[in-house]
Amino acid sequence: MDQDFVVGVDVGGQTSKIGVVDARGDVLAQTVIRSDTYGSDAVAFISALATAIKACVADAGKESQIRGIGVGAPNGNYYTGEIAFAPNLAWAATQSVKFSEMLSEQLGGIPVTLTNDANAAAMGEMAYGAARGMKNFIMITLGTGVGSGIIIDGKMVYGHDGFAGELGHTSVVRYNGRPCGCGKTGCLEAYCSAIGVARTAREWLESSDEPSMLRDLEEISSKDVFDAAKSGDKLALRIFDYTGRLLGRSFADFVAFSSPEAIVLFGGLARAKEFLYEPMLEAMNENLLKIWKGKVKIMFSQLKESDAAILGASALAWEL
Amino acid sequence: MDQDFVVGVDVGGQTSKIGVVDARGDVLAQTVIRSDTYGSDAVAFISALATAIKACVADAGKESQIRGIGVGAPNGNYYTGEIAFAPNLAWAATQSVKFSEMLSEQLGGIPVTLTNDANAAAMGEMAYGAARGMKNFIMITLGTGVGSGIIIDGKMVYGHDGFAGELGHTSVVRYNGRPCGCGKTGCLEAYCSAIGVARTAREWLESSDEPSMLRDLEEISSKDVFDAAKSGDKLALRIFDYTGRLLGRSFADFVAFSSPEAIVLFGGLARAKEFLYEPMLEAMNENLLKIWKGKVKIMFSQLKESDAAILGASALAWEL
Repeated sequence: MDQDFVVGVDVGGQTSKIGVVDARGDVLAQTVIRSDTYGSDAVAFISALATAIKACVADAGKESQIRGIGVGAPNGNYYTGEIAFAPNLAWAATQSVKFSEMLSEQLGGIPVTLTNDANAAAMGEMAYGAARGMKNFIMITLGTGVGSGIIIDGKMVYGHDGFAGELGHTSVVRYNGRPCGCGKTGCLEAYCSAIGVARTAREWLESSDEPSMLRDLEEISSKDVFDAAKSGDKLALRIFDYTGRLLGRSFADFVAFSSPEAIVLFGGLARAKEFLYEPMLEAMNENLLKIWKGKVKIMFSQLKESDAAILGASALAWEL
Repeated sequence: MDQDFVVGVDVGGQTSKIGVVDARGDVLAQTVIRSDTYGSDAVAFISALATAIKACVADAGKESQIRGIGVGAPNGNYYTGEIAFAPNLAWAATQSVKFSEMLSEQLGGIPVTLTNDANAAAMGEMAYGAARGMKNFIMITLGTGVGSGIIIDGKMVYGHDGFAGELGHTSVVRYNGRPCGCGKTGCLEAYCSAIGVARTAREWLESSDEPSMLRDLEEISSKDVFDAAKSGDKLALRIFDYTGRLLGRSFADFVAFSSPEAIVLFGGLARAKEFLYEPMLEAMNENLLKIWKGKVKIMFSQLKESDAAILGASALAWEL
């Protein structure tokens, strides 16, 4: 029987999503399991995942028609198939787990391919989304953190060791930059993630008396800043302007590296498109060499958010 | 007869170098012509170049054994074969010249391939130099300007339009950065080129009374700063420390992009290896994510400087 279907798995800290996908990017069946109830027992988690994958494939009626399993996971390494020292995954936080090998064994040898979640998002965008037909683009995921996946000449960039594309940890503020979760300071992620935006809000509220509806809140999330901006709150609007300009400035440096056709944005914070787009594009163009000014697109993901993670991971499996 | 030889051409502002090269990287014959005596007449320059190439091939005794011609030139575009708006080439400063096509015609149809000079240097280093056997590295040329050539998975990165790898024009100083020749401010090239080093010297001499042998000079070049550092001049030593640290900081961001095995340095300023290496390596490691700390090499070109430009360009032609 033809093996015309793949499975996409998005491994996250709380839950892992599984979907059976056809060549057009339609999700035929999907399911979700918890990822956070196995402590440090990687074997138990991977067994549970394999069971759920089998059930999902059966649900889609595609047994023995699965070409392979594509997995996106934090710190997933394409070359080694390992997930190593991923702070958000209890079963892989302090050890290196031979994830692909173990999962494949549990599934009777079906090939498994693994990469990190941002790379998976880029693959999904190229196969089914905004970057269809593009051979050179950079995917930036704006979520709790800032991730990236780089496509050059139609291929994912993995680099010497499989870890290429950590653009969230390039420097955007050189002096007195904020500490970043990675241990460095001034990283793009420390400013332009959901957490970074909330932090900018707290810092700006503390350092001025400017009126803002954000002052009434106990805790501030990036969603609160977004809602305030929608209501016309001037401070909130300036926070997005600042965030967008920092992103644009960084994008200009990324363009100087690989000269992409577009930068494609995905993730929770990318929902603030209406406030981020103009400052981002302006700051990028201000910082580009003349040969690129006005020529590089900034685009937003065209994948349904509920399907995107599964589709991204599944796109990997078509290469098997 | 087997076509076992290639010609490498390095087109520069004052002179252009031509060499006939075998597969081992031995230069069998070489010659030099002026590039600056043709005004804006691109046809005249290209005719003179073709004549010199024919003579050089005859000199090596390899007529009809030439597989192709590889050319490295400022602003040379691999995709289009054009040299466009290259400030240092009078005959291509204000126009776009169909260089590859015109040269190939003059040579009876021998294929010509073109790229920019930093990319050619990277190809040379991969074929014959420090990066032999490497599939992922970044070449940084430290000369009058700062150029770069990026190799990923054994292939040159050209990007969407052929202009990828302008790392000299990424931002190294974000606020109040120096104006760069490109029209932007704070570019790596404005600080870490030969011209940048001389400028740091002039700025630091003006802003302090610190004794330095550089004070006795009418005009200061990067060579003067190098000589002063060799004599133990403290200001000159600090200039190289500063320059090296800026380079290292930028290298850390480049590593986050493509995760190379090594950064390879070439060019006049790279001769100051003894003063640049330690601060470069230290600053790079300080700014790398933990996964890369201590793992990325900084290397220096292993090609003879007199042959390097020709070898680099010739390496391109083997792909024809």
